[in-house]
Amino acid sequence: MLGGNRYGKSGIRLVRVDRSAAWHDLVDLTIDVTVEGHFAAAYVAGDNSAVLPTDTMRGTVYALAGQGPVGEPEAFGLRLAGHFLDTMPAARLARIDLVAHPWGRIEVGAIPHPHAFTAGAGWRRTATVTSTGAEAWVVGGVTDLVVLKTAGSAFEGFLRDRFTTLAETGDRILATSVTARWRYTETGADWSGSFEAVRRALVETFAAHDDSRSLQHTLYAMGEAALAACPEIDELRMVMPNRHHFPVDLEPYGQSNDGSVFVATDRPFGVIEGEVVRPGASPPGRAWG
Amino acid sequence: MLGGNRYGKSGIRLVRVDRSAAWHDLVDLTIDVTVEGHFAAAYVAGDNSAVLPTDTMRGTVYALAGQGPVGEPEAFGLRLAGHFLDTMPAARLARIDLVAHPWGRIEVGAIPHPHAFTAGAGWRRTATVTSTGAEAWVVGGVTDLVVLKTAGSAFEGFLRDRFTTLAETGDRILATSVTARWRYTETGADWSGSFEAVRRALVETFAAHDDSRSLQHTLYAMGEAALAACPEIDELRMVMPNRHHFPVDLEPYGQSNDGSVFVATDRPFGVIEGEVVRPGASPPGRAWG
Amino acid sequence: MLGGNRYGKSGIRLVRVDRSAAWHDLVDLTIDVTVEGHFAAAYVAGDNSAVLPTDTMRGTVYALAGQGPVGEPEAFGLRLAGHFLDTMPAARLARIDLVAHPWGRIEVGAIPHPHAFTAGAGWRRTATVTSTGAEAWVVGGVTDLVVLKTAGSAFEGFLRDRFTTLAETGDRILATSVTARWRYTETGADWSGSFEAVRRALVETFAAHDDSRSLQHTLYAMGEAALAACPEIDELRMVMPNRHHFPVDLEPYGQSNDGSVFVATDRPFGVIEGEVVRPGASPPGRAWG
Amino acid sequence: MLGGNRYGKSGIRLVRVDRSAAWHDLVDLTIDVTVEGHFAAAYVAGDNSAVLPTDTMRGTVYALAGQGPVGEPEAFGLRLAGHFLDTMPAARLARIDLVAHPWGRIEVGAIPHPHAFTAGAGWRRTATVTSTGAEAWVVGGVTDLVVLKTAGSAFEGFLRDRFTTLAETGDRILATSVTARWRYTETGADWSGSFEAVRRALVETFAAHDDSRSLQHTLYAMGEAALAACPEIDELRMVMPNRHHFPVDLEPYGQSNDGSVFVATDRPFGVIEGEVVRPGASPPGRAWG
Repeated sequence: MLGGNRYGKSGIRLVRVDRSAAWHDLVDLTIDVTVEGHFAAAYVAGDNSAVLPTDTMRGTVYALAGQGPVGEPEAFGLRLAGHFLDTMPAARLARIDLVAHPWGRIEVGAIPHPHAFTAGAGWRRTATVTSTGAEAWVVGGVTDLVVLKTAGSAFEGFLRDRFTTLAETGDRILATSVTARWRYTETGADWSGSFEAVRRALVETFAAHDDSRSLQHTLYAMGEAALAACPEIDELRMVMPNRHHFPVDLEPYGQSNDGSVFVATDRPFGVIEGEVVRPGASPPGRAWG
Repeated sequence: MLGGNRYGKSGIRLVRVDRSAAWHDLVDLTIDVTVEGHFAAAYVAGDNSAVLPTDTMRGTVYALAGQGPVGEPEAFGLRLAGHFLDTMPAARLARIDLVAHPWGRIEVGAIPHPHAFTAGAGWRRTATVTSTGAEAWVVGGVTDLVVLKTAGSAFEGFLRDRFTTLAETGDRILATSVTARWRYTETGADWSGSFEAVRRALVETFAAHDDSRSLQHTLYAMGEAALAACPEIDELRMVMPNRHHFPVDLEPYGQSNDGSVFVATDRPFGVIEGEVVRPGASPPGRAWG
Repeated sequence: MLGGNRYGKSGIRLVRVDRSAAWHDLVDLTIDVTVEGHFAAAYVAGDNSAVLPTDTMRGTVYALAGQGPVGEPEAFGLRLAGHFLDTMPAARLARIDLVAHPWGRIEVGAIPHPHAFTAGAGWRRTATVTSTGAEAWVVGGVTDLVVLKTAGSAFEGFLRDRFTTLAETGDRILATSVTARWRYTETGADWSGSFEAVRRALVETFAAHDDSRSLQHTLYAMGEAALAACPEIDELRMVMPNRHHFPVDLEPYGQSNDGSVFVATDRPFGVIEGEVVRPGASPPGRAWG
Repeated sequence: MLGGNRYGKSGIRLVRVDRSAAWHDLVDLTIDVTVEGHFAAAYVAGDNSAVLPTDTMRGTVYALAGQGPVGEPEAFGLRLAGHFLDTMPAARLARIDLVAHPWGRIEVGAIPHPHAFTAGAGWRRTATVTSTGAEAWVVGGVTDLVVLKTAGSAFEGFLRDRFTTLAETGDRILATSVTARWRYTETGADWSGSFEAVRRALVETFAAHDDSRSLQHTLYAMGEAALAACPEIDELRMVMPNRHHFPVDLEPYGQSNDGSVFVATDRPFGVIEGEVVRPGASPPGRAWG
């Protein structure tokens, strides 16, 4: 018996250049399209009559991009989701995931260049648009936002059992790669303004939260600040892996380590997840998939 | 306001060697530990008194592995989940994700060597154990199971819209990297026997399903065969990305392509997902997270 | 002033299926093409008249593959190198790097299937062909050949300085991912037979070298065995990163570790490199690039 | 017979914090240590008496970092190379490869924070120091410097053969990820000043080279500008993969593409390499390995 199912195209790479003026603009997106609906006959009976090829999903992204400026990722996602619901009678839900790759302008002699770009900071803006036709939900986000602080972070007073050997510390390096996603309350927000407000709130709070008792503690403070900074969102979901920096024991070398020499490790790593929700938040519907 | 939250340690690398006889045995696991429960005070107030350090989770994996043979991934996961629920008063749910890296024995002159190994095929066995203490659920799985067939696969009769340019084909390369996860109906199954039965059913059905109308069609046939092969499972969730192999147009070179020359592409790629469920299946509870 | 220079196309993915009989055969290659020669005008003056587009290099791989069976990687590399020297008047040297992705046949009820395949073990066969037209050199190889042994490996009697804290050990896990490349003495060897002879000699010697004093020691024994097994090669270059498995200190948990519980680490890692050369070896010419 | 050989430790992760004032500073390096010399006995006879453990190399990096500020990567590399030549009687050459991970300061309300950081742009600064004791060479570098321009780039007038189908274009997107390495003429340069001068020359010239005939053409212009900008270097070696952006054919959708809609592709990709050398350059010695 077939249960839940979905299909789509992933990794569609779209670069859209606006060359209508000497000052070129650049949109660089990686897009995943997913649809759900009445597709059981394809699975069970090999009947493809309801199945739009994933190759057409790919082509549609380019065709729609060719009809005019792509605009913000959230808006383009809404446009794509609506299109697939219109064109596929069997579809009951369309989901568009977008990752925007930021580019900055190269400066030549401190003057921004009109058509030369350099890859921006490591973080990327994300968006997920989900639509049933009758309703739509937009989730914004940022991923790979790597931050580190060398003071103002402790981890003490934790639960101990017989396998606990970790020393308490009042002063450690705290580093993480933030992935945050936030749910908008509407489908017509100021997308870029909101994105920038949330991103700035997350980063500034990470820095300013100067009595961090744990990564959990800082995560919550960041989420609260983001809700305060952006009235257009009701909820954040955050994932913050702990990029451990351990002080190196220099005693075997006849030296002491005054909190200056660290080894950065890859694995294993702690992972902290948390949702921060505005009291009285609107219902999430199918925003989160 | 804090919503759902969880934390844990990811990427714990454990290699356990059984050297009790000349014929050594090897277990190689990567383990993620996640707990949920009453941890809000850590987030909201910086109170760590309920928080077992993720470093202790790491240590616990090694300590338990030191107390005797690790056994099968599913069984070790159950042991770990139970341990964390016992040791952490605030925990209400523990989830253990395990990836087993298969090793084969090196053969020297066709004779298996007692203590030398070589990395096995690319696929890996996975397990996810979820426990609330009162109840527990086990999900087995396989990932990165790469298969390809050069005949017996078509894709025709699909929906067309104005952006559809794909040609119908009655004969194509079908290739995918299967990730399948299956839910056991109990916590005391024949784990390795079941794993092998399911894995074999998936692979053999991929090969033998000789009138494939689509990747969806083959996915469902594989899932049905797995349910038939293993009475200890009630449900599979499968993700099968389409590893597209496109015939190369050789006409510009004055040649024809008789279905022999293909380009394998990375992006974009189709993704087909489906759940195949036994009629009258037991309720999934929190098995899927 | 322009010094050395070269250009080409990398990552050309070719899958060639032989469907001339019911028993299909499959060749799966990733190919890099590089040429050197009189191309300075392109760099210095923007004169492209000597520059064959890298897109043509891509197309040529498919065109030649369309003219008949691809055969062994080494042979196809020789064919490609000769072609580019013929077609590009400015080229003085062509180098073709090939990686062959091994596929095995799926067995259905223990019977190999005529047209269904599964990805082979993790290692891949490599070849590098270099030609000046007048002369050509072939280097075979294997990469990502992961092996591990749980006995017969020591590391003792090493140099110590004031920063040395490592304990001597007479019994450790030895694990590595072998990359070996070997130089053939001719351009018409039994490529697949030689490959298999060398690969087997490397793996079997890793296993059988039962008094390993170090990874260096085992590397040399493996290289010697490969030269002995394959008269068609004169030299091997081997790179063997040490995949460290450290015994976990269980004493903090009140347990002892009898050499059974290990942590596998990613970084940092030792790297051992060595060339093993047959006495009286032919000159390498430009085989190694 | 043993030919060339070397060994060392790779992937040593060092983070050094200077907390001597409220304004913290951060150095984040990944370091590889390699030595060559009289180590044949280890390979051939299993005699480790000349072999300093790679674990000691790891420890040495931390011990030296604990003795005072690390300083610039090039300087720390020289210190490490000298140390290993001193401490290992059999070593004849030491090579230190360093990758510096750039961090920027988080700004809170436009004010740089004294101890909170965010990961910098994607590019990283590299250095390779090679020393024989009597002589030493320093190679600086940058890697993963991703740049793109949407005008001023053509590719025309190239060589055509019977497999050439590429259309000439007077206007295309040019994008690449620059890896450049440059050889210093001395071991006491203004490392950071030189790095910044070269990096800026490369980026600004990429942007300003407004009649690019090919990636080769732009590579050479960038190298020339770097030599002009930094008298302390004599030579650059550059590798510039072509990150192809192909205009999408929208005609099947009844649209035209006015040079605005592109697909960015991963594989295959062109690779352009070139060395740009100052006339009368000093001999490279063993700088390049």
